[in-house]
Amino acid sequence: MNIGWIGTGIMGASMAGRLQAAGHALSVYNRTRSKAEALLGGTASWCDSPAEVASKAEIVFTIVGHPRDVEEVYLGGKGILSSKGVCRIVVDMTTSRPSLARIISEKAALLSIESLDAPVSGGDVGARNGTLAIMVGGRKAVFEEILPLFQLMGKNISFMGTAGAGQHTKMCNQILVAGTMVGICESLLYAVKLGLDQQSVFEIVAKGLAGSNLLNVFGPRISQGDFAPGFFIEHFIKDMGIALSEAEAAGLSLPGLAVVHQLYVAAKAQGRARSGTQALYLALKSINGMG
Amino acid sequence: MNIGWIGTGIMGASMAGRLQAAGHALSVYNRTRSKAEALLGGTASWCDSPAEVASKAEIVFTIVGHPRDVEEVYLGGKGILSSKGVCRIVVDMTTSRPSLARIISEKAALLSIESLDAPVSGGDVGARNGTLAIMVGGRKAVFEEILPLFQLMGKNISFMGTAGAGQHTKMCNQILVAGTMVGICESLLYAVKLGLDQQSVFEIVAKGLAGSNLLNVFGPRISQGDFAPGFFIEHFIKDMGIALSEAEAAGLSLPGLAVVHQLYVAAKAQGRARSGTQALYLALKSINGMG
Repeated sequence: MNIGWIGTGIMGASMAGRLQAAGHALSVYNRTRSKAEALLGGTASWCDSPAEVASKAEIVFTIVGHPRDVEEVYLGGKGILSSKGVCRIVVDMTTSRPSLARIISEKAALLSIESLDAPVSGGDVGARNGTLAIMVGGRKAVFEEILPLFQLMGKNISFMGTAGAGQHTKMCNQILVAGTMVGICESLLYAVKLGLDQQSVFEIVAKGLAGSNLLNVFGPRISQGDFAPGFFIEHFIKDMGIALSEAEAAGLSLPGLAVVHQLYVAAKAQGRARSGTQALYLALKSINGMG
Repeated sequence: MNIGWIGTGIMGASMAGRLQAAGHALSVYNRTRSKAEALLGGTASWCDSPAEVASKAEIVFTIVGHPRDVEEVYLGGKGILSSKGVCRIVVDMTTSRPSLARIISEKAALLSIESLDAPVSGGDVGARNGTLAIMVGGRKAVFEEILPLFQLMGKNISFMGTAGAGQHTKMCNQILVAGTMVGICESLLYAVKLGLDQQSVFEIVAKGLAGSNLLNVFGPRISQGDFAPGFFIEHFIKDMGIALSEAEAAGLSLPGLAVVHQLYVAAKAQGRARSGTQALYLALKSINGMG
């Protein structure tokens, strides 16, 4: 099957590569062509716009950066929905606004195009290994048609409800991450400041009820001074901002998330936008005059 | 060996019971005598004050409610340190102020009594089954002498440093719990408010990087409306208050912890002091006018 793929960043390139490896021909567009070279070296063919992708492929996947990029790719002058090509199903895997997912779904329906929102979690490692979690909103029958393709990219794949439900589920995931990350970073900073051995603290608390997957991943990295990005702080700020604005629109106050969001905004203000989310630890050090 | 035990609440009664089951004779004091009856029905003998316990037992364990109770038990008129009995080692297993642990250690030393601070985590189930985590501060040689007794009560036992280091480690644990709990409760509330199926959200996020032991324990309880206490909100407020004041005294600002502490204070203000910590979910519902 000829599949369209728009967005070949760290995540997208790996995910598209897994479809390619399974034998699918790809029509590819990316804002920066050079990032698509690895795919183009194989069976993929280049397109000059999202509209061109949609004119050539029945099923089009997108995974770009921010909601404004999603808008451009779908609703822009040369966007997927700018004309009716052969495209029959669109699947946005960007973490984006649930309300935008609903708008795209409605606009696509006017062209008789089906739409799914299907954000992922699991990071670059999950994208490479095909072990992503994929949270899907849209029509169930469309989900079932796309499922074999999702299974090339992920392991933990769930249909969550109507358009936007995939994005809302990803927001639930990010709210959990936010709380857990502030707990991890403040706890490990308290340990150092109060004279404990950070590694010893990690070892005892990680085994108990306070233990978490995030602590297992980031505790050792923080102790070793490794703040390289698995997931960029600026992207996490975007996600938390979406969750807060969707919550506010629904009449829901989330005080914990609001504070974590602000702490990450401070981290960005300190020049850490392209550090990993665990660099919240460094931001808290700076806030506390600890360098 | 004749062992002194002061404090026979839910945790203390189970922990002392394990020493008793291993063949140790106990000298017991508790503010409310009726809560010690299960032990007194066995080989334990009743004492009328902490001082009397210390006059009869070489090693005295304490696990009471609040730092003010610890002060009374150690430094009060009929406290353990009010006279030099046969007592040679004291071990406070209450979660209490690290600074108080240091004061007790110093006052005990004047009487040639050794002191350990050894708070636990693992809850009532861990206390019954002898699977507690025990975090210990004091002199290493004293820790090693007491270790065989700790091993009757816990599985994950760590020496963390000088007097107060056990308490500081417990604070690290509680800071982690605070962040993770607010993430869990806000995430599951967002799920409901934004129209998702809470159980489906739990199932997908719990398997991924956002998963944690706390989510596995409390996610299902929250979904089922079970807010019974494993650990009381009022005790958690105490713990977070200790962490915040110790941090402030050391010149450390912890904004995330401060917000979670305030949200739990709100939960208490709503009449939920004796609910379990997962009732933060109900507090957030109330804050949001959701009943």
